[in-house]
Amino acid sequence: MAEKTSNQMWGGRFAAGPDAIMEKINASIDYDQRMAAQDIAGSKAHAAMLAATGIISDSDADAIREGLVTVLSEIEAGRFAFSAALEDIHMNVEARLRELIGEPAGRLHTARSRNDQVATDFRLWVRDQLDAADAGLVALIRALLTQAEAGADWVMPGFTHLQVAQPVTWGHHMMAYVEMFGRDLSRMRDARARMNESPLGAAALAGTSFPIDRDMTARALGFVRPAANSLDAVSDRDFALEFLSAASICAMHLSRLSEELVIWSSAQFRFVALSDRFSTGSSIMPQKKNPDAAELIRAKIGRIFGANTALMMVMKGLPLAYSKDMQEDKEQVFDAADSLMLALAAMDGMVRDMSANRESLATAAGAGFSTATDLADWLVRVPGLPFREAHHVTGALVALAEKRGCDLPDLSLADMRAVHGGIDDTVFEVLGVENSVNSRLSYGGTAPVRVREQIARWRERLG
Amino acid sequence: MAEKTSNQMWGGRFAAGPDAIMEKINASIDYDQRMAAQDIAGSKAHAAMLAATGIISDSDADAIREGLVTVLSEIEAGRFAFSAALEDIHMNVEARLRELIGEPAGRLHTARSRNDQVATDFRLWVRDQLDAADAGLVALIRALLTQAEAGADWVMPGFTHLQVAQPVTWGHHMMAYVEMFGRDLSRMRDARARMNESPLGAAALAGTSFPIDRDMTARALGFVRPAANSLDAVSDRDFALEFLSAASICAMHLSRLSEELVIWSSAQFRFVALSDRFSTGSSIMPQKKNPDAAELIRAKIGRIFGANTALMMVMKGLPLAYSKDMQEDKEQVFDAADSLMLALAAMDGMVRDMSANRESLATAAGAGFSTATDLADWLVRVPGLPFREAHHVTGALVALAEKRGCDLPDLSLADMRAVHGGIDDTVFEVLGVENSVNSRLSYGGTAPVRVREQIARWRERLG
Amino acid sequence: MAEKTSNQMWGGRFAAGPDAIMEKINASIDYDQRMAAQDIAGSKAHAAMLAATGIISDSDADAIREGLVTVLSEIEAGRFAFSAALEDIHMNVEARLRELIGEPAGRLHTARSRNDQVATDFRLWVRDQLDAADAGLVALIRALLTQAEAGADWVMPGFTHLQVAQPVTWGHHMMAYVEMFGRDLSRMRDARARMNESPLGAAALAGTSFPIDRDMTARALGFVRPAANSLDAVSDRDFALEFLSAASICAMHLSRLSEELVIWSSAQFRFVALSDRFSTGSSIMPQKKNPDAAELIRAKIGRIFGANTALMMVMKGLPLAYSKDMQEDKEQVFDAADSLMLALAAMDGMVRDMSANRESLATAAGAGFSTATDLADWLVRVPGLPFREAHHVTGALVALAEKRGCDLPDLSLADMRAVHGGIDDTVFEVLGVENSVNSRLSYGGTAPVRVREQIARWRERLG
Amino acid sequence: MAEKTSNQMWGGRFAAGPDAIMEKINASIDYDQRMAAQDIAGSKAHAAMLAATGIISDSDADAIREGLVTVLSEIEAGRFAFSAALEDIHMNVEARLRELIGEPAGRLHTARSRNDQVATDFRLWVRDQLDAADAGLVALIRALLTQAEAGADWVMPGFTHLQVAQPVTWGHHMMAYVEMFGRDLSRMRDARARMNESPLGAAALAGTSFPIDRDMTARALGFVRPAANSLDAVSDRDFALEFLSAASICAMHLSRLSEELVIWSSAQFRFVALSDRFSTGSSIMPQKKNPDAAELIRAKIGRIFGANTALMMVMKGLPLAYSKDMQEDKEQVFDAADSLMLALAAMDGMVRDMSANRESLATAAGAGFSTATDLADWLVRVPGLPFREAHHVTGALVALAEKRGCDLPDLSLADMRAVHGGIDDTVFEVLGVENSVNSRLSYGGTAPVRVREQIARWRERLG
Repeated sequence: MAEKTSNQMWGGRFAAGPDAIMEKINASIDYDQRMAAQDIAGSKAHAAMLAATGIISDSDADAIREGLVTVLSEIEAGRFAFSAALEDIHMNVEARLRELIGEPAGRLHTARSRNDQVATDFRLWVRDQLDAADAGLVALIRALLTQAEAGADWVMPGFTHLQVAQPVTWGHHMMAYVEMFGRDLSRMRDARARMNESPLGAAALAGTSFPIDRDMTARALGFVRPAANSLDAVSDRDFALEFLSAASICAMHLSRLSEELVIWSSAQFRFVALSDRFSTGSSIMPQKKNPDAAELIRAKIGRIFGANTALMMVMKGLPLAYSKDMQEDKEQVFDAADSLMLALAAMDGMVRDMSANRESLATAAGAGFSTATDLADWLVRVPGLPFREAHHVTGALVALAEKRGCDLPDLSLADMRAVHGGIDDTVFEVLGVENSVNSRLSYGGTAPVRVREQIARWRERLG
Repeated sequence: MAEKTSNQMWGGRFAAGPDAIMEKINASIDYDQRMAAQDIAGSKAHAAMLAATGIISDSDADAIREGLVTVLSEIEAGRFAFSAALEDIHMNVEARLRELIGEPAGRLHTARSRNDQVATDFRLWVRDQLDAADAGLVALIRALLTQAEAGADWVMPGFTHLQVAQPVTWGHHMMAYVEMFGRDLSRMRDARARMNESPLGAAALAGTSFPIDRDMTARALGFVRPAANSLDAVSDRDFALEFLSAASICAMHLSRLSEELVIWSSAQFRFVALSDRFSTGSSIMPQKKNPDAAELIRAKIGRIFGANTALMMVMKGLPLAYSKDMQEDKEQVFDAADSLMLALAAMDGMVRDMSANRESLATAAGAGFSTATDLADWLVRVPGLPFREAHHVTGALVALAEKRGCDLPDLSLADMRAVHGGIDDTVFEVLGVENSVNSRLSYGGTAPVRVREQIARWRERLG
Repeated sequence: MAEKTSNQMWGGRFAAGPDAIMEKINASIDYDQRMAAQDIAGSKAHAAMLAATGIISDSDADAIREGLVTVLSEIEAGRFAFSAALEDIHMNVEARLRELIGEPAGRLHTARSRNDQVATDFRLWVRDQLDAADAGLVALIRALLTQAEAGADWVMPGFTHLQVAQPVTWGHHMMAYVEMFGRDLSRMRDARARMNESPLGAAALAGTSFPIDRDMTARALGFVRPAANSLDAVSDRDFALEFLSAASICAMHLSRLSEELVIWSSAQFRFVALSDRFSTGSSIMPQKKNPDAAELIRAKIGRIFGANTALMMVMKGLPLAYSKDMQEDKEQVFDAADSLMLALAAMDGMVRDMSANRESLATAAGAGFSTATDLADWLVRVPGLPFREAHHVTGALVALAEKRGCDLPDLSLADMRAVHGGIDDTVFEVLGVENSVNSRLSYGGTAPVRVREQIARWRERLG
Repeated sequence: MAEKTSNQMWGGRFAAGPDAIMEKINASIDYDQRMAAQDIAGSKAHAAMLAATGIISDSDADAIREGLVTVLSEIEAGRFAFSAALEDIHMNVEARLRELIGEPAGRLHTARSRNDQVATDFRLWVRDQLDAADAGLVALIRALLTQAEAGADWVMPGFTHLQVAQPVTWGHHMMAYVEMFGRDLSRMRDARARMNESPLGAAALAGTSFPIDRDMTARALGFVRPAANSLDAVSDRDFALEFLSAASICAMHLSRLSEELVIWSSAQFRFVALSDRFSTGSSIMPQKKNPDAAELIRAKIGRIFGANTALMMVMKGLPLAYSKDMQEDKEQVFDAADSLMLALAAMDGMVRDMSANRESLATAAGAGFSTATDLADWLVRVPGLPFREAHHVTGALVALAEKRGCDLPDLSLADMRAVHGGIDDTVFEVLGVENSVNSRLSYGGTAPVRVREQIARWRERLG
């Protein structure tokens, strides 16, 4: 049955004549209509400049501007009939403009080409995504800061190899992600600064003989300057690739936090409880709470880095200037941007809503002689043992505690001194997970006082 | 202006409450509705089996079957109202079935889970794509065979490093692609044979205690056997990855042929003329014909291999059995499959329509002393010179021809014998591009007689 | 300090003249010497054929064969002086052969080119890797079968979303990986069958005018037939890409098993204990056992799929026939093959050595009302409740058990009947994890009897 | 034969016991010895700080410093015996230090762990690569500026779709690549600024209780500040990923230029002649010059982006803090860095050495009515035709020229006026390729005066 339906469908597809296949592979209006606002903004800036430089009349420019306002309002209201025969957003807008205002519409394309037009539209669109990523990252960082502040002194296990290594604080762990997302923010901002140049006026590829003012259109569109080489301006997609690269690294950070949330939500860990809003349950197993959102966010790295791979392959080995291959840039970037924004928003919500299980964290933090390192460090610091001997003595004390079935702070001073005579009762100041984390006062360390300093620094930085 | 529009848009997105974000990230109905026919086929097979094994009554099974027929017809007619609140295609179909037939709809899900259901649907969908790729490849190979036959003895330059190396025939060059697409065909068929096992009956992950007959549902759906491990059956996505791998290699072949078509269409080469249907022109430069379709096909490797990358990253490190991450499998495969089928169809059309420029090919084939190798081989074969000396003599003859401003066959026998006395007039049998290609009679060589043998072999193989 | 050292180093590198840079980027002998055995095997087959067809004399062929034996023994003994000036393995071998046997060495290259020679060598090398992967997979499958047999009836939690879903057996879980690695095995074998064609005799790209016998060399080298198109034969790297694709999917399976081993080794899970040989410890925390090998294997997917990405990008858009870009194929495949073989061997060892913690598994299997689904199924199957009502009743019983602080099998029949009168004491046959797994008797289900059937099937299949 | 050799080899590999396999997969000394200088620089800074803060004695610090100087000199002189049993560079150096200075060597590791040590070493190493890429890019940009200056007014065809579109200048085309490599430079510098934070002092993951001074070690190693979160400091590999991302985009630019060089070197184009030093030839076809270096550079994007893919996959989903998976970071970055530096150096040399074929460029620039756009623009600008009518008139004139077998400037004024009466003899000022490029005076346009402005701007920028 499935077979038949599908053969029919595919049969139909293959039966399509060459013209239908060419229209299908060639037209971009299905997706590039997302750049309608950018396309119209670019056209308005271009028309105003053409009038200011005397290339077209003021009345033509007025007609064009008013016509474009109408077109945009039709699109925003969902009343615009997009046509695949008109291929792309540029020609759809221009054709409608001609219907609305007649002959002056034909003057809009003076000293411009679809090559610089699409480069401008797409750059504006990507710039918006960089801003959206910025906003999304700031929101997520604030959510993490709130969690960090609440649990600046809650102890939990610090893992290496998913094995308990040393106690850390919940706040410290949250702040590690603040650092990661903070770098993502910084990468988005650097990318924005680098890409904020206007291709408009590069024309087909060689510039134009019309006396245009590229600074004026650049300023009008919020660019800091016009792009300096017209061939490069129409064939450059670095801005898209740099966005995809930064988005990929950000998605990697999201995948790490998601992985932790999935593991921490397991019955075996129970470190956090996710809210019902970001989980799904079972109609018959009421205690079951599936971390669906965390899993979906974890998976987004595939999609985003897949888009990066796709565009990198497309651009490989393309001669200058414009090749049609480059039309494959948009859907990849659109999908990656949507995925990133959605993942950031979902992670923001999940972090806001989640509750750390303070008791489980504390219990797990103390297990497995997690303060053995503290004891060894104390033996170096106080009685002055060389590192190697300190490790030997610590190993003996852990073995003793294991034999006694107790933890390190539960050993008596006498027991300890029997192993090494240099131990005195100040050793108890570093044993126990609370003491351990409080002692790690080096800059960037896990001590609550250090964590709170970093929270303050970040709050100030975000303003 | 663009800024404002966009901030509004993004602001709106972030303002969405957690519930809206969760629905957005969680629901799959926007895309998995493409598997409606497969979902209904699977449900029909399941219901028939439940009745045959006495798990449900015959009358319930009849009601279910009839209801599903109605649902499918509604979907095919575009009269079905898909609901995002119902998350996915499975629940949309089931909810509508309940409206149509009431209580028996609730029995359909007996001894089944969404885990094995989606695994079955998706596998059926991918199997259809393997069949569609098969059909698309066969069509393209036939188009290449037609070109090869027409030009089995047309000479053209064989390139290495894009430098003329030795003359070959047009037919031979076309047949090189037949070999490539032939391997793609073989890979699609192997993938189909390997993946053609039924997950249905694996239930959530552990199998079921109902006395189901998995062989019966497997047969009904065209599978050769039920999958042998229920945990694996619901967590396996190898079939999708293997399709993406095979599709990626096929897309690589398409990119190579496209690259050649782009280069061959340039004013500098003029080896082929693409048809108007697969090109675009310029309103003012009538001789300009842009190979848009070739460029777009060349770019598809990015998208298809990007999907491969995406799904590989998603699956990396997922514990058994089902994780929600796996929901990210479908859009990647859908997009890659659409891209591959479109690229195959467009290439098929382009190859059918294109005209080789026989004269340009022949002229280019003879340039650059392209038969120097033939001369050297003749010196080894006939007068029996060692390879090294044969190369030395050939170099001297080429230098002489270059000095005379003529080609190798234009040298007189006397001139040749002055360089090496062992040369006689049979040497002219190998000089000249026609002689050259006719002499390369080794199996798989470029001689027209060999090319025609391969065409015949392929025609027989395709049936 | 680091700065200075490094500037010096890099300064030196940039100071290198063009000739040094060209030699560095162009020479392949540093890595392609790994194909020495394949190169010599190919030359021996070629020389024997040249003699059999009368192209060279028997005495020349004897001298060549004996010389090549000597060269190989020198290489295997580490006594061969590789020279970068001679660029690659082919020219290194040929130059040494000339030193050893003089003039006949020059006849070896008759009717052959470096293009078909390297294609042959590399194909033989990759074929060896397919065989090595085959052996490695068979060994790993055997290790998993041993684990599965030992624990065919040990209960453990079956997870979805890393949340306990239903009980399964250890044997069943192990067998899920047997299915995965079994598909990998099948993919390696299909790839081997498809690639096992001989490029030798394709010469530079067009075939040759010498009366060679390509069937003879193909047979001598274990190929099933000569490749059918000489242009394709020298420009095809599908065999490498298909190996990389199959290796990538295999590495994905390895990453999933590794992830499970890392999680299962955590103090929170304690499902397995890895052996000391595949872990590292801590000098002061004796209970700490880091699953280093599992983590390293988990990471290998990056490297292997990275190689796949690399070669796919290299091949994108290359015109026929040979381009120097293709020289980048070898290092990627060498590294991926080494990584795969090492990962398979390490996983084999880890699986052989690991001990499942039967008690922890059983305890975890019973937690979280994991048999709620069994109860619901029983309510459908025995008293005949519709699915939806069965779920409702089950939910009520779970809530009751939760209130009582007990598990489902600990509820009294009276308590149960108070919730639904149709329940009788046969319900206890499905409650409890042992009953649950024993009841899942559908083909491919988790019941020990089914697991043992699959073990037997695999043992027979492997022979 | 190949089979046997290889089976033996692989048999041997699999026969290796678990211990050999674990050492093989676990040890990193084979490659991380490349970080020896960085490791020793880090240790010297750490020891000096330990003394300054009173954690160790001055005499111990002196002994350590002197010992490390000796170790470094041994390594640089090639007299150091690396041991796989000691696993990595850190332990190799420390063991040798102990041999040299005895007990004080044991104090060096106070308040430090291998986790922050390797993070510091690797960061220093990557920082060196960012500096090396900076130097390599500056050199390449200078080479392009030299080419651009020499040919600021040489006309050549500007292509879209590899079809001649409009004339441009050689200088303009070279400057397009200057813009691309200029962005690469800017990305490398941003990456350097972002990553230049010191992990040293983060210890295992939680910081330390020793009163260390992280600012002091940071300054000593050229870092601008210590990393602010110890968990992040040991688990962050963003700096490596950002380098790989920037390197990938740079490699993409190199692939585009390489592609052009390969096409331009073909017999059909003859736009450039590459030097013998960056080409290979044929012993018998003296005119053949294979652009090997360009092809090899074109291929490097595969390798570099493959490394990016590999590390991204490795990092996906890793929980904090250190996991052994991260050991896979180095070889990828080492290989990508080597590939990038080599490709930049080779491209620099190739660009310096290449000669543009000015005549071929000019001839090709004028073919195909490449100034039709100029004519249409003139019709808009001077007689004031609407765009659409201007295109119509231009098409008619081109058709006329085609009929006459001449180019546009060869038409008589009378002929032109017959098509449109508004044409006067100033039209000849824009016809002809020289006029065309001179007229494109918009900012960033192809006019020689604009090109020279950009060359001057870049020279000033580079200093």
